[in-house]
Amino acid sequence: RYFHFCKLPGRVMGIRLLRFTSVVIIVLLLVAGALTALLPNIKDDKLPNLRREPKPQSQSALDSFTLIMQTYNRTDLLLKLLNHYQAIPNLHKVIVVWNNIGEKTPEEMWNSLGPHPVPVVFKVQSVNRMRNRLQNFPELETKAILMMDDDTLVSAHDLAFAFSVWQQFPEHIVGFVPRKHISTPSGVYSYGSFELQNPGFGNGDQYSMVLIGAAFFHTGYLEDFQRQPEAVYALIDETQNCDDIAMNFLVAKHTGKPSGVFVKPVDIRNLEKDTNSGYSGMWHRAEHLLQRSYCVNKLVNIYDGMPLKYSNIMISQFGFPNYANHKNKM
Amino acid sequence: RYFHFCKLPGRVMGIRLLRFTSVVIIVLLLVAGALTALLPNIKDDKLPNLRREPKPQSQSALDSFTLIMQTYNRTDLLLKLLNHYQAIPNLHKVIVVWNNIGEKTPEEMWNSLGPHPVPVVFKVQSVNRMRNRLQNFPELETKAILMMDDDTLVSAHDLAFAFSVWQQFPEHIVGFVPRKHISTPSGVYSYGSFELQNPGFGNGDQYSMVLIGAAFFHTGYLEDFQRQPEAVYALIDETQNCDDIAMNFLVAKHTGKPSGVFVKPVDIRNLEKDTNSGYSGMWHRAEHLLQRSYCVNKLVNIYDGMPLKYSNIMISQFGFPNYANHKNKM
Repeated sequence: RYFHFCKLPGRVMGIRLLRFTSVVIIVLLLVAGALTALLPNIKDDKLPNLRREPKPQSQSALDSFTLIMQTYNRTDLLLKLLNHYQAIPNLHKVIVVWNNIGEKTPEEMWNSLGPHPVPVVFKVQSVNRMRNRLQNFPELETKAILMMDDDTLVSAHDLAFAFSVWQQFPEHIVGFVPRKHISTPSGVYSYGSFELQNPGFGNGDQYSMVLIGAAFFHTGYLEDFQRQPEAVYALIDETQNCDDIAMNFLVAKHTGKPSGVFVKPVDIRNLEKDTNSGYSGMWHRAEHLLQRSYCVNKLVNIYDGMPLKYSNIMISQFGFPNYANHKNKM
Repeated sequence: RYFHFCKLPGRVMGIRLLRFTSVVIIVLLLVAGALTALLPNIKDDKLPNLRREPKPQSQSALDSFTLIMQTYNRTDLLLKLLNHYQAIPNLHKVIVVWNNIGEKTPEEMWNSLGPHPVPVVFKVQSVNRMRNRLQNFPELETKAILMMDDDTLVSAHDLAFAFSVWQQFPEHIVGFVPRKHISTPSGVYSYGSFELQNPGFGNGDQYSMVLIGAAFFHTGYLEDFQRQPEAVYALIDETQNCDDIAMNFLVAKHTGKPSGVFVKPVDIRNLEKDTNSGYSGMWHRAEHLLQRSYCVNKLVNIYDGMPLKYSNIMISQFGFPNYANHKNKM
């Protein structure tokens, strides 16, 4: 908001006019004051969609999600997974991020075997980058994204429930794979999973990240990702790793809360071994975990602080898979 | 918003004054507009405490809770439970609602066996009413209430975790005992537990109430309870039952969301059989469940609608009791 007054032929005008000018100025100051005082209420709204919806949306686009799956060197697995995921409830569209540079997509074959329940868009990439999947694709019409690694199968039940959970926590990453950072006396952070226990936690465990390789999150966060410091992109490209850690930093900074909500999966499988390419994922590299600790510390430097917060909440579906799963069998 | 005022064509002072007056008026209209537009953000705040805190609170009163336990004809059990609960973390004070009309409280004996970690207040009642425990006691200094039946033991671990969950969902009843209502083709509702499955629910189960006999909820709801229609009090007194159902109606109406958040307990026990009085709880009466269905339908008439909403979220503590409890053992 800004106000511009052109020069008034000052001398000619009388004191009354000056009085009115001061009235206007005082009122304007009051406006500024009032608006400033109220700003926090606006900021309180943490849902990117409310202000940043890029496109008009059909009703179905509001109660549904877009599956984004990045694939490299596992086309046979990709097709197997597409056949599974295309039938899950509330799916609006599938975006396949094609990182097989210079290779033809299976689009022709896919279409020849149609009809399919939802459209599948192949996004051919020019460089094989981990962060290709984090573009704000123009084909995105839903507020919700389901991002899946191309070797991971999650049951339709788990996905339907997790989506209903995301609808209640739309500012969080709602997913099936929790991870954590650990502080060490040296001030250096370490990255780990549930095996890495921190005695300081007291009873039980905690997590500070939910990986985006099997998670729902808000489309708005893909926009936010385009506005990160160059150093973040450089780190991800240098390591071909850690894009998911960066997203957790981004969400934690945005909300000031734990970035993720962990939904306990009933049936999640890694199908890696089923691929004929024999290609095994990046996370088998010896340096994988060390890289991720390295990334956590780098990101703390880049963002000048540690935004990740701990949560110990684990959400399951009441009465599923067994009708008395609320009873503890100890 | 952006304003551009230019070249007041000189000469007639009157016109200038008019112009300035209208500027002032326009600006004032804009202020009004801005303020109105921002109001909903303020209304979004559903937490009773923010507007209704009856008393100034010490910091400890903000991070702690008050245990309210109503007792009738089980003083031996009461003392056993007090010994357990007085040691749980974050406990600020205990209020014992003494429904043994005309009987002396064990206060003297209790004090003779001091010191005790937190103060215990005995509130002697003049009539034995189920809803005595729902008074807005002047001794309440915390925002959080833990209400427990006088025959129920919940582990300190479960209580500490559930309190941390309540701090994240302060407008809900956060507790360990979920229940539900079921619609029938006749339009009459039925009350039930997890055994009562509704095929319409599809996979898994749902709940629409969390009982207050083992739950955390906000002090503000005790204030709200004092402002209910007389018919609600009459129903509770007539049945000596259903005060917990009425509280779920109240919370659901207040939030427009499911009234409760169910936390899966690791260790909850009913100690009823340990009492020497041989007194067994109201819920053993043959008519108990029928009364509760009756209450649900009565409350729907009184409130002119069914405010209860279903949830299928079940929260457990990540990594507790076993460090890999996020893994599914099927």
